Amino acid sequence: MTETIQTDVAIIGAGPVGLFAVFEAGLLKLHCHLMDYLPIPGGQCAEIYPKKPIYDIPGFPSVLACDLIHNLMEQIKPFKPTFTLGERVEKVSKTDEGKFLVETNRGTRVIAPIVCIAGGLGCFEPRKPDIANLADYEYKGIDYIIKEPAIFRNKNVIIAGGGDSALDWTIVLADIAANVTLVHRRKEFRGAPDSVEKVRKLVEDGKVKLFTDAQITELHGDGKLEGVTISVDEGDSHRVETDYFIPLFGLSPKLGPIAEWGLNIDKNAVEVNPITLATNIPGIFAIGDVCTYEGKLKLILCGFHEGAMMAQAAYKILFPNKRSVLKYTTVTGITSL
Amino acid sequence: MTETIQTDVAIIGAGPVGLFAVFEAGLLKLHCHLMDYLPIPGGQCAEIYPKKPIYDIPGFPSVLACDLIHNLMEQIKPFKPTFTLGERVEKVSKTDEGKFLVETNRGTRVIAPIVCIAGGLGCFEPRKPDIANLADYEYKGIDYIIKEPAIFRNKNVIIAGGGDSALDWTIVLADIAANVTLVHRRKEFRGAPDSVEKVRKLVEDGKVKLFTDAQITELHGDGKLEGVTISVDEGDSHRVETDYFIPLFGLSPKLGPIAEWGLNIDKNAVEVNPITLATNIPGIFAIGDVCTYEGKLKLILCGFHEGAMMAQAAYKILFPNKRSVLKYTTVTGITSL
Repeated sequence: MTETIQTDVAIIGAGPVGLFAVFEAGLLKLHCHLMDYLPIPGGQCAEIYPKKPIYDIPGFPSVLACDLIHNLMEQIKPFKPTFTLGERVEKVSKTDEGKFLVETNRGTRVIAPIVCIAGGLGCFEPRKPDIANLADYEYKGIDYIIKEPAIFRNKNVIIAGGGDSALDWTIVLADIAANVTLVHRRKEFRGAPDSVEKVRKLVEDGKVKLFTDAQITELHGDGKLEGVTISVDEGDSHRVETDYFIPLFGLSPKLGPIAEWGLNIDKNAVEVNPITLATNIPGIFAIGDVCTYEGKLKLILCGFHEGAMMAQAAYKILFPNKRSVLKYTTVTGITSL
Repeated sequence: MTETIQTDVAIIGAGPVGLFAVFEAGLLKLHCHLMDYLPIPGGQCAEIYPKKPIYDIPGFPSVLACDLIHNLMEQIKPFKPTFTLGERVEKVSKTDEGKFLVETNRGTRVIAPIVCIAGGLGCFEPRKPDIANLADYEYKGIDYIIKEPAIFRNKNVIIAGGGDSALDWTIVLADIAANVTLVHRRKEFRGAPDSVEKVRKLVEDGKVKLFTDAQITELHGDGKLEGVTISVDEGDSHRVETDYFIPLFGLSPKLGPIAEWGLNIDKNAVEVNPITLATNIPGIFAIGDVCTYEGKLKLILCGFHEGAMMAQAAYKILFPNKRSVLKYTTVTGITSL
């Protein structure tokens, strides 16, 4: 059975801008449900550069992206946001009552009068290796994102890639999986030197098998993945039995299904009114890097402002006859939902 | 001799929004000089509520106003802003070279091609009680703003007012002063219910004396304040000895001389284009609470965004043929001026 969630504002994208929008909506007593393709909140900050310092968040001379996300999660806690993570929003349609129905690739259904797209640069789609019959084994032994390391317990896992993701997951899975093999097309790794060193140590200790100057060229199995062929440059090809093959070649931003919803799109971004952040579809808003208007700056701090403006405009749609009262939080503090 | 300062952007107002504008201008290699009537940077945050927590700065579940200012000062340090503090900007005129000359009440002259007004709600002037000889005791026992609670230690203090300031300071000083008396013209308080309750408890416990339906009608003392007369409506007048009398009737914002510069003004605020933050005078911008546009929210976080947008627009005026390149600070960090 699929789950149906009711909320005031369905926020698509749980990056910093989507998260802070929960706060601004919460001050107006609106509940938010956030949905993100990534398995954790934080968007790019969490997925791509958690440990990189950001210098242009007002009030933080320097803050690690992961700490910013942690702080935002703390800040919105009183407003009890709910989350659907690790699922990709596929479809938005209108219900008979004039609300929006947002559906994910896994059948989760969210019903809300307001939809706010805070999708950043779009869904990050995994860069995929160029192997014939790849699609036959996707999610049947091939994964592009690791959500739950525990599913690899006592399994045979082959990871491909040379960046931080590949290195970090090799280190983590070395403790969990039965066997971990890392395959990289070059000799040199692009990841943090510290992680490279850790992986080399695991290889020395016999805990990880490493093939460099190598790639996966064939996939085998009946209905699900059972093995791969590893081809070493100027060397042999080996067929290796495996339960999982995880290519970690990075993520490439794509606007994704949002592009198909009838929104006005300009250069991979959703056109909005800069004051209300309203799209051309009444009730659907877009904030942060996914939106565009004359002079739009793709800065997190601008997305925060856009979230505040969007919350006001959404409130006016939901309560056309009430005046939203903006209270200074210094006077009254905040009241949880 | 009067001082003449040359800069790229003369920022009038050194509150949080003016301060953060230095950062955004600095990223574009523009130098800023800030001017404020207050003797320290921080605007209202420093002057009116330094020790009150703010809850709606993105990334801070709670931050004291003074800490926010401290952080912003740290953040803009690499851009070496300069300051003229404790002087009031009186006049803006055009120089022969087409720049602006900004002059203060003390004769300081700042010359810049760009002026950015970040004046908040304007200069804050305390609302004063209507008592003869009030001026004789101002700052000799009468204070309108509490900057340093410690000076009231073991002193006798009379506070007048019925709003949050009066209630909050009554609560704080009850622990510090020898005696605290609160005098309010009405029976009902306007402040947060929670604070009203706390004060009533302090009165019950004998820690605070409360006079309602009452006001201060006379001031006594030789050279400095020594006592006041409290007159209760339909009741007696008491003469009470005291070291301090603190009327907390709120601050009344005044736009001040800015109103005379030929800018389009709407209800005590400067009209701007919401994208460029440009006023009707080319080269003069306004950001933060002092500016207004359709849908404007008077939030610090919106002022931060406006500072970023203003910096871009100012850059285009100064370098009409260069494209400003917005760099993500995560990639390159920041480079000081």
